Amino acid sequence: MIGLVGDTESLNPELIQQISPAIEQVLRVKKPFKRASLEFRYGEPSEVVVSTPNGLVTFGQNHPLVTVAGPCSVENEDMILETAQIVKASGAQFLRGGAYKPRSSPYAFQGHGESALGLLALAREATGLGIITEVMDAADLAAVVAVADVVQIGARNMQNFSLLKKLGNIGKPVLLKRGLSATIEEWLMSAEYILAAGNPDVILCERGVRTFDAKYTRNTLDLSVIPVLRSLTHLPIMIDPSHATGKSELVPSMAAAAIAAGTDSLMIEVHPTPAKALSDGPQSLTLPDFQHLMLEVDTIAKFFGRGKPCPYATALPKVSYATNFAIV
Amino acid sequence: MIGLVGDTESLNPELIQQISPAIEQVLRVKKPFKRASLEFRYGEPSEVVVSTPNGLVTFGQNHPLVTVAGPCSVENEDMILETAQIVKASGAQFLRGGAYKPRSSPYAFQGHGESALGLLALAREATGLGIITEVMDAADLAAVVAVADVVQIGARNMQNFSLLKKLGNIGKPVLLKRGLSATIEEWLMSAEYILAAGNPDVILCERGVRTFDAKYTRNTLDLSVIPVLRSLTHLPIMIDPSHATGKSELVPSMAAAAIAAGTDSLMIEVHPTPAKALSDGPQSLTLPDFQHLMLEVDTIAKFFGRGKPCPYATALPKVSYATNFAIV
Amino acid sequence: MIGLVGDTESLNPELIQQISPAIEQVLRVKKPFKRASLEFRYGEPSEVVVSTPNGLVTFGQNHPLVTVAGPCSVENEDMILETAQIVKASGAQFLRGGAYKPRSSPYAFQGHGESALGLLALAREATGLGIITEVMDAADLAAVVAVADVVQIGARNMQNFSLLKKLGNIGKPVLLKRGLSATIEEWLMSAEYILAAGNPDVILCERGVRTFDAKYTRNTLDLSVIPVLRSLTHLPIMIDPSHATGKSELVPSMAAAAIAAGTDSLMIEVHPTPAKALSDGPQSLTLPDFQHLMLEVDTIAKFFGRGKPCPYATALPKVSYATNFAIV
Amino acid sequence: MIGLVGDTESLNPELIQQISPAIEQVLRVKKPFKRASLEFRYGEPSEVVVSTPNGLVTFGQNHPLVTVAGPCSVENEDMILETAQIVKASGAQFLRGGAYKPRSSPYAFQGHGESALGLLALAREATGLGIITEVMDAADLAAVVAVADVVQIGARNMQNFSLLKKLGNIGKPVLLKRGLSATIEEWLMSAEYILAAGNPDVILCERGVRTFDAKYTRNTLDLSVIPVLRSLTHLPIMIDPSHATGKSELVPSMAAAAIAAGTDSLMIEVHPTPAKALSDGPQSLTLPDFQHLMLEVDTIAKFFGRGKPCPYATALPKVSYATNFAIV
Repeated sequence: MIGLVGDTESLNPELIQQISPAIEQVLRVKKPFKRASLEFRYGEPSEVVVSTPNGLVTFGQNHPLVTVAGPCSVENEDMILETAQIVKASGAQFLRGGAYKPRSSPYAFQGHGESALGLLALAREATGLGIITEVMDAADLAAVVAVADVVQIGARNMQNFSLLKKLGNIGKPVLLKRGLSATIEEWLMSAEYILAAGNPDVILCERGVRTFDAKYTRNTLDLSVIPVLRSLTHLPIMIDPSHATGKSELVPSMAAAAIAAGTDSLMIEVHPTPAKALSDGPQSLTLPDFQHLMLEVDTIAKFFGRGKPCPYATALPKVSYATNFAIV
Repeated sequence: MIGLVGDTESLNPELIQQISPAIEQVLRVKKPFKRASLEFRYGEPSEVVVSTPNGLVTFGQNHPLVTVAGPCSVENEDMILETAQIVKASGAQFLRGGAYKPRSSPYAFQGHGESALGLLALAREATGLGIITEVMDAADLAAVVAVADVVQIGARNMQNFSLLKKLGNIGKPVLLKRGLSATIEEWLMSAEYILAAGNPDVILCERGVRTFDAKYTRNTLDLSVIPVLRSLTHLPIMIDPSHATGKSELVPSMAAAAIAAGTDSLMIEVHPTPAKALSDGPQSLTLPDFQHLMLEVDTIAKFFGRGKPCPYATALPKVSYATNFAIV
Repeated sequence: MIGLVGDTESLNPELIQQISPAIEQVLRVKKPFKRASLEFRYGEPSEVVVSTPNGLVTFGQNHPLVTVAGPCSVENEDMILETAQIVKASGAQFLRGGAYKPRSSPYAFQGHGESALGLLALAREATGLGIITEVMDAADLAAVVAVADVVQIGARNMQNFSLLKKLGNIGKPVLLKRGLSATIEEWLMSAEYILAAGNPDVILCERGVRTFDAKYTRNTLDLSVIPVLRSLTHLPIMIDPSHATGKSELVPSMAAAAIAAGTDSLMIEVHPTPAKALSDGPQSLTLPDFQHLMLEVDTIAKFFGRGKPCPYATALPKVSYATNFAIV
Repeated sequence: MIGLVGDTESLNPELIQQISPAIEQVLRVKKPFKRASLEFRYGEPSEVVVSTPNGLVTFGQNHPLVTVAGPCSVENEDMILETAQIVKASGAQFLRGGAYKPRSSPYAFQGHGESALGLLALAREATGLGIITEVMDAADLAAVVAVADVVQIGARNMQNFSLLKKLGNIGKPVLLKRGLSATIEEWLMSAEYILAAGNPDVILCERGVRTFDAKYTRNTLDLSVIPVLRSLTHLPIMIDPSHATGKSELVPSMAAAAIAAGTDSLMIEVHPTPAKALSDGPQSLTLPDFQHLMLEVDTIAKFFGRGKPCPYATALPKVSYATNFAIV
């Protein structure tokens, strides 16, 4: 058997097969994702531009770091508004908050559903932040799209292909979280579903994978996806250190590492009173800790050429090692 | 911190806490699944009884082995009828066949959908076999339920909680495949979703988990789930060696091992011409190989006290080691 | 790039490369193990014949099932003799018992070392059983070889290449346990180290691999290695359900499954009083439970054509599905 | 069953057991590592001070970043001297280079052994760099210790307890690589072996763990160990992005991320001509690429308060988020 790998269009498999009767088969091996591939855009990173009340926000390799923050679930009006105000004041651009929550147990809090969407709309109006929230069920898609600026597909639904196919013409970008044990290729194939359905705006979010050791971290954050994805796809990248580690005290150093590795955006879980959170309390930063962290995030992003205020840092060539150097 | 594990109802946590001021907290630790737990039925295994044209078929620990066989996907009338005839002739009770296929790639064959359901109905009528087919989308549920005797939830949808919640009153048993990297507890919690929604008939199907080595098998078949599930749940168990190994030549020995370990049922992939199958060819047995295997399966099942024709084998005490002995 | 896979000796890579300037490289891809490969013996399984006081015992695909049993560690004379008597009486051929124990903690019991070897020699003399014990350190090799009929290399030392190289001319067979996360190929390469060093007698022992779920089993027993190894290597196979599951109540059904899948031998942990064992108590069967299990093991082995007393069972063609049928 | 977790010395388990006959057992649960624990040093990080010809180098949380670089194996005098000169010129403090190589295959290059040690001594003399090289066999320990300034225990020998016990009085620090699928706790327990044997100088090196996806990276770099280890142990930390990723183009961004996450040192593989390397070529940086990377490493380390020239950067409080903030 002979496998043709790489740019093999000019090769004639039959010609190769004729060399010897010992050759049973000649096969072309190609990447299974096409629209998601870097080649599809001739090596150019794509930009996902989101219109928020506060203005356009662009996710992309040549743009400032974007930060998304908020609670695991929208619990009530006070908590979401209080959180949104601090998220806004800290300089983040998006508020995340779950209305529909995928929970292992049917007896656990499942999210407040539509009423939570209403509270997110309220928070959006109050702060001008863009809204990112998860859809789990095609039946809720219209309601979610009506409120969300970016629609999230959670890790457990990364291969819910029926749902992915329905995201083609929603007119909103999709944040696609990596499945708990999804290979990079499967993840990109799921992005391909959305792209093939007609929606060009997909952001890939790493949130930790499942490994043999879950004693000290909930999942294992795989930061090497950043340079790997850069070599495979044009799509923007987000890192979620909160779900990856499952512990708020591990979030700051992993956020810093993610920026250093070249992420385009961060998703961070915050809650006014983590100890009383209805879900994911242990991984949520308090509001003051988040504010503290954002000061560092800004400084670090600026250092790595991904700072918010133009002009970008000049000390280092812009995002040199994390992207061009690393990949070329 | 003190954790109370086991039957701790008679213990008063406050009393324990008063022993010393050094004790910060006393917590009860319980199994998170209730309706799925063995205790819920006071240690009695449950039976899932399915009405097929050929008569009632019972899945359960105290019943003969049930076999499900068929192609990955329903490709056309000829192939599904030919397959169904052989499946029936070989002594299996159910025909499996995909109408809706979860495929990693949007460009891969996605199943023939509703027309395939029609062909399954045809095969059911022609052979009297029960039908097991997968539903991926709530929108297709009514159509699937109209044809299927058992509705399958695939590995990728094991934590599609929106879908699970809709299975409560469909009036058909559910075959719940284990997710690719789902823990046993998560799997039982997903069963709990279905039970809590009102459907008491759930069969658990192991189909291999994802590990570090996928060179010689597609997944790693975890047969130890059989005795583990026996100690945790009353629900019947199915083993799918075809998806687990991904290679037809590994199926026979794993089917034998599954019976020896005490499985209640088997799911085996067969295809008239595996080399031309639209999906999962390498793991499909040819029809003659399946017939050959079924002769062995019958002999082995009989030896282990799970043979079809009553009275059961008497040489060994019925399912002794695999269940009672192993667990008590 | 072009990879040549399979029997490619007659192909000239340069000739292929000349077809087009677009071909950068032409590579032969071969199995990395040679002496361990099935081809090395032209498809014939090898036999490992061990001389014990009770006579020759042969490990191999065309031979009766061999059983090895004993405690995790040799604790004192009484317990090892008592255990050995029951192991012998139950029909097993080998006594296992640790003199040198690899323990995660430096503070845990490390085995009684040389004095334990003396007790194993005593038990050998008293019962005629062959002895299998582990060597961890080249410095102890001579002492271990002096007592052991089969020298065990534990999972943690599977890639201790320095040690493997020293096993070439010890004149005793080697039992090579699979590493906790060793691929099948790495395992066979470690066997190749021993074979290449000059020792033709290697038995491969699966003892469970590390996966994401260790709540209900210590490791995940990978029984599919049996048919996979049959297709790759001529070496005999042993299955250790005790270490794999870590729970004595799971051992019987996994032992039965292993026989059904075609294993050549079993290793089972037993202890006179598991609750008081210095190591691995939870996975040790009591002596009566072991005797009970051996009755079933014998019956099952006989059924599958691997029973001790000749003539073999005639109901089924000898080891049909588990080996020839499964692999060819 | 009742488990006592935390500081439970003042609790009397028997007293608790007497509360009710329903309590079968009361157990104390403690961290299994003691000398390696952060508590052992009352929360103070330890320092590993190494004397090199160029002066003392200190590994530790409150010290500048230390860099170790060199080829996988010492191939000949020219290549090791050329590499050492560039490593020195780039500002690294240690030269790594394998004399004894653990290789999966017995037919692969196993290192030049003692003659390679001689070449390392030569390189040490020529450049003043400290030497780090691996020992695989206790028989080679004296020879390795005679040349090495830090003795490396490789991932495959992390649980070679016989070898670990012999490192107590060698008078040289030990670099302990994490096993391929070692939990953090097992890793610390292996460090405990060395500490308990009498050697207080242990550096922990993360080099990637084995997961389900090895298509685009050789292993999965687990950077979250940095803040986790900070909360558990006083020992210094090293990150090896070369072995973790297996691809030189992924090294720069992972090195940056490691510094951002708070590592104390880096190990990076370099080779004059990676394409011709006898081992691990694909993960080795060329000498010019390494020089380029070191410029960035220095800038980044300085930014994070871990720069070589005192005084440290003042823009940010010293190692604030990565350690104190993250952990307290």
